[in-house]
Amino acid sequence: MRIAVLGAGAMGALYGGYLSRGNDVLLIDVRQEQVDKINQEGLIIHEPDGGQTLCHPKAAIDTAGMEPVDLMIVFVKAMFSRSAIAGNRSLIGPDTYLMTLQNGSGHEDTLMEFVDREHVIIGTTQHNCAVAGFGEVRHGGSGKTCIGSLTGDVSRLQGIADAFTACGLEAVCDGEVQKLIWGKMMTNVSASVLTGALQVPLGYIAENPAAWALCEKLVREAVAVAAGEGIVFDAEEKVAEVRGVCERSPKGITSICADIAAGRKTEVDTISGSVVRASRRNGVPAPTHEAMVNMIHALEGKAGK
Amino acid sequence: MRIAVLGAGAMGALYGGYLSRGNDVLLIDVRQEQVDKINQEGLIIHEPDGGQTLCHPKAAIDTAGMEPVDLMIVFVKAMFSRSAIAGNRSLIGPDTYLMTLQNGSGHEDTLMEFVDREHVIIGTTQHNCAVAGFGEVRHGGSGKTCIGSLTGDVSRLQGIADAFTACGLEAVCDGEVQKLIWGKMMTNVSASVLTGALQVPLGYIAENPAAWALCEKLVREAVAVAAGEGIVFDAEEKVAEVRGVCERSPKGITSICADIAAGRKTEVDTISGSVVRASRRNGVPAPTHEAMVNMIHALEGKAGK
Repeated sequence: MRIAVLGAGAMGALYGGYLSRGNDVLLIDVRQEQVDKINQEGLIIHEPDGGQTLCHPKAAIDTAGMEPVDLMIVFVKAMFSRSAIAGNRSLIGPDTYLMTLQNGSGHEDTLMEFVDREHVIIGTTQHNCAVAGFGEVRHGGSGKTCIGSLTGDVSRLQGIADAFTACGLEAVCDGEVQKLIWGKMMTNVSASVLTGALQVPLGYIAENPAAWALCEKLVREAVAVAAGEGIVFDAEEKVAEVRGVCERSPKGITSICADIAAGRKTEVDTISGSVVRASRRNGVPAPTHEAMVNMIHALEGKAGK
Repeated sequence: MRIAVLGAGAMGALYGGYLSRGNDVLLIDVRQEQVDKINQEGLIIHEPDGGQTLCHPKAAIDTAGMEPVDLMIVFVKAMFSRSAIAGNRSLIGPDTYLMTLQNGSGHEDTLMEFVDREHVIIGTTQHNCAVAGFGEVRHGGSGKTCIGSLTGDVSRLQGIADAFTACGLEAVCDGEVQKLIWGKMMTNVSASVLTGALQVPLGYIAENPAAWALCEKLVREAVAVAAGEGIVFDAEEKVAEVRGVCERSPKGITSICADIAAGRKTEVDTISGSVVRASRRNGVPAPTHEAMVNMIHALEGKAGK
């Protein structure tokens, strides 16, 4: 397969690197140093077991005039998806699949601006990964990649899943992938966002009654909004699951908490924002998520004040 | 008139002091030093113009066995109203009026546990005042005291208003006193609470678009809840009014912001909490106020962590 990966950050580089073992992979990034390093010396993946994987995907900044690929995977930050895809439009032909494994839900709306419904692939990944310098990433943990389609029919996607698995990225097709995506989001849109707003570790959310009341409210609202999308969860189960996450990692500092503390822009629009967008689409109210999105943006705005 | 003032904090002492010029006033407080100082040396009010007013109300801790008074004014923090009134129950007879000028709305619910509806007086004050030591308060600014009844009939209250005015506390009766109370609350339950949650001065609320979106939402929700209580405001007018407060005092630090910063308990249950309680009573949703109450309590809980 000819595969393009948009964004050679941690996750993009990891997927691009692995997939280059059995496919023709092009990593696309806006940073010249990253592109040069990968083209000249390859990409080094520091594995969880201490070993290293050296891969040789190609890398480029400008793809104008190139031929369409079979699969384009979007791994830029969600707020840049549209501009990144638009800037590499020549890689998209009538048969190109466009895939997102980004955090949050609803990324298909952006993807469908570029390909038809049948060529959109959505999914989740259990891998985690951090940048370790130009041309180097630190692979924190592995897991399954689950992909699916908007139509529910996944038969056409089995070949892609197999290609991933053959390269060491275990992948499965799932007919209810939206449920996986929303399920994965529940902790992010409740406990994680609250740790950002309150500037506390995860344990505080379960331990402080007011914080927990707010967390529970966020889970229940998200479950109701998901139901409005036709994705049904048991609210009690999800509440218990989120509580478990907080209790098992009491000292855990989420990325949204660290982003606020460091004065960086967070991904709140991708996570809580996607609940709000779904709520506006399906009419199920999500006032507490709306409040959290504004709260986080208001805290971001304090940076440099 | 025989008047008892519950709570000889700043506002209680101010009212008790002024009213003692023409009435038999008893200030009730739980602090022995405050009671002794007032009984032995009187109460000193440092006036805004630099002058001093010396008054001689009586003060006591224990009122068991005393005769009922004509008027009891509750000036303790709202969370202590019930226990303070209950502890001085012997001062309440069948003809005693029970008055609240406390911040926030809904205090009548507590008062009606002790007297009938006709003997409850609610109202607002424009005075502000700070403690300046035992037996001393600093009078920051004057203004009108507006009082009214739950029945709307204020004819019976004119004598009380006149007695206040005769002592230098300009007071008027208002048939729509609930509207005054809710109107006064609008800035408190929106911009002020947000300055606490975000730890910013008032100006930031008008200046940061996300903070302002949240502020506006809080005003509109409170206006809707007030309408559910039969108290009608023009939402656009109230939004503009709150914005004006933020813009005119850009560096203003609210007491709720200072309380959070200092690790103290705030009055959020009295202000935002009263919107939530009214919402539960009348069925008009106030989810953003609920979120703010929990957010502030969760921030209070960080103290000493």
